[in-house]
Amino acid sequence: MSYENAPFSAAEYGRRLDKTRREMERRGIDLLFITDPSNQAWLTGYDGWSFYVHQGVILPGDADPIWWGRMQDTNGARRTVWMENDRIAGYADTFVQSTTCHPMEDLAGHLRQEGFAKARIGVEMDNYYYSAKAHAVLAAELPDATMVDATGLVNWQRMVKSDEEIIFMRKAARISEKIVRTGIDLARPGLRKNDLVAQITRAGIEGVGDDWGDYPAIVPLTPSGLDATAPHLTWNGEPMKTGEATFFELSGCYRRYHAPLCRTVFLGTPPDDMVRASDALTEGLEAGLDAARPGNRACDIANALGEALTRVGIERGNRCGYPIGISYPPDWGERTVSLRPSDETVLEPGMTFHFMPGLWLDRWGLETTEPILIRESGPAETFCSVERKLFVKD
Amino acid sequence: MSYENAPFSAAEYGRRLDKTRREMERRGIDLLFITDPSNQAWLTGYDGWSFYVHQGVILPGDADPIWWGRMQDTNGARRTVWMENDRIAGYADTFVQSTTCHPMEDLAGHLRQEGFAKARIGVEMDNYYYSAKAHAVLAAELPDATMVDATGLVNWQRMVKSDEEIIFMRKAARISEKIVRTGIDLARPGLRKNDLVAQITRAGIEGVGDDWGDYPAIVPLTPSGLDATAPHLTWNGEPMKTGEATFFELSGCYRRYHAPLCRTVFLGTPPDDMVRASDALTEGLEAGLDAARPGNRACDIANALGEALTRVGIERGNRCGYPIGISYPPDWGERTVSLRPSDETVLEPGMTFHFMPGLWLDRWGLETTEPILIRESGPAETFCSVERKLFVKD
Repeated sequence: MSYENAPFSAAEYGRRLDKTRREMERRGIDLLFITDPSNQAWLTGYDGWSFYVHQGVILPGDADPIWWGRMQDTNGARRTVWMENDRIAGYADTFVQSTTCHPMEDLAGHLRQEGFAKARIGVEMDNYYYSAKAHAVLAAELPDATMVDATGLVNWQRMVKSDEEIIFMRKAARISEKIVRTGIDLARPGLRKNDLVAQITRAGIEGVGDDWGDYPAIVPLTPSGLDATAPHLTWNGEPMKTGEATFFELSGCYRRYHAPLCRTVFLGTPPDDMVRASDALTEGLEAGLDAARPGNRACDIANALGEALTRVGIERGNRCGYPIGISYPPDWGERTVSLRPSDETVLEPGMTFHFMPGLWLDRWGLETTEPILIRESGPAETFCSVERKLFVKD
Repeated sequence: MSYENAPFSAAEYGRRLDKTRREMERRGIDLLFITDPSNQAWLTGYDGWSFYVHQGVILPGDADPIWWGRMQDTNGARRTVWMENDRIAGYADTFVQSTTCHPMEDLAGHLRQEGFAKARIGVEMDNYYYSAKAHAVLAAELPDATMVDATGLVNWQRMVKSDEEIIFMRKAARISEKIVRTGIDLARPGLRKNDLVAQITRAGIEGVGDDWGDYPAIVPLTPSGLDATAPHLTWNGEPMKTGEATFFELSGCYRRYHAPLCRTVFLGTPPDDMVRASDALTEGLEAGLDAARPGNRACDIANALGEALTRVGIERGNRCGYPIGISYPPDWGERTVSLRPSDETVLEPGMTFHFMPGLWLDRWGLETTEPILIRESGPAETFCSVERKLFVKD
């Protein structure tokens, strides 16, 4: 084993495997095939931008994981995973984006060889990196196996962060503070949006001191004016204008760990309804942070926020947050819990969320958010400390 | 219709729809459901980082496309697609990452309502954004429909670029030249890799003159030394060292169009085998460019390259290129043709490729590549002009 290049200790990877295997056993799963790059990295340390081809981690109940992918990417696996080289398997390049064969044929061969032809195999049915075709081919190649939906199985084990992970998230949070402040400081009428994003991105990758910046799982979202009524538009080359709000939805990233943070800046004098909404949002965030205690539920955070917003006549209708930690594109959320009235997940110390009550109304958008940590007791800790308000630059 | 915000003309979108519908008709497909963000953008102009939730374009044979996605993202659709607002449909936020319901239930409702309950429906079975679960739910909800694999159907229509698209790719190419030169110019022993990437990224997003830089579909790949023996490792905070090669695999991006370009820099004196390989690679690139003529086949490019490399004892074994154009993460390739000996696709004027014969050997990695355009006659045009060699900085 070599943990030299892996970001975490042997003990940490051991704990992760143990947690995952307990859940496999509980569900009667003999073998997991894991395609989510975040889950692959969390279990094995694998880190590379190779997820545009089929690849994954084979996790038996009683042996080390096998990293499986395109042959040319096994070099990257050798340099990033903690397992021995004999736990790395590659498929021939002829399988890549072929119309006559599929990489899952190769995977099925490995599984048969390892004795899993009749196993109960857990697969991540609802993941970007496990396509409908991949599943159809794998199931057809293993007619005697039972395929079980294990979407989110590993993601759920990631919910409570270890001390080692919290250290990474604190580093990411310093970078988040830096880049959000960069955006607010530089914003001025006439500045082209792409030039602003160029500086934000530069600052994020430079990082803070020795803590170098990794690429966030979502690019900077920094829309202005009417574009900010939509939550997910990316930038363009238009100049910033007086009379418009711009939100900064950004995350620092330290070795794949995130701490997303959003703030909004208004150039000029903001309209009254926006000021009122911002005040209510700040109040709602404080109420939500206070509700974010161990023993309370995810919905308690959402309801506390909702009450403050309802008082000013705003009904969001959208979830107001999600768990965060290790992640790869296209999402920095962990896709387990959602902070919304219907989610009764009980909060535990060490859980981390992006408390994200974005407002996308008819004439403007407003985002003031916090990455948070559930503590042993009392209200949540915020990873970042940037003033919680609408920033106004006259 | 509003083509104001869309990047292309009404005539261009018309041509794209016509091409796609001809292929639908040829295959007897009544309706396409398109999840690939690049295909969505190519057909409708939709542009936003919302592909981490289920969304897509519904394309009937005889009516305008419908953009379908999460309710909060319909604001983004209104601001980017050319269709009327009544061709935009949103699903409730409660479907998002729910464990009790799935967005495909909502989609199935729309399809039934539009009269497609018994239709032949084409879906992109092997796409990041069409999961195994999405397919299972959609098929179960539409038991009388026939689901047909339409992976790559739209991608193939994108192969030959229009004049409008070529203009975008030329703009992207100017940005590619700028950022590759930035990398080569700044590289020096002691420079932290993340600081180098920060400057490359800044330069790319600033763009060239009025042509602002968009985010590329793949982050900068800039590994050094032994890390460069793997094709897809991303950066870290280690300083660059004398005696190591670093390759720059980068693409400028102009309004989602790419022109990937790679060069390699060696700090110090490169080993003889690397110099020999680089010379053979340059020769192979020239031979491949000469073979990249209309009427020739994709394999002719690969074979021409292969001959030059074989002469110095290098057998790559991997494909040496793929089509490029519009793209979203996680891949800037179009996932149709592969430049390899088994691919007999006939080259046509207007096709564009990343001719990408990366070498990842035991002790070093070397990438010298070209984004190319198949012309009306004669050898391919290279979009970029950066000297085709191993750059050495003593």
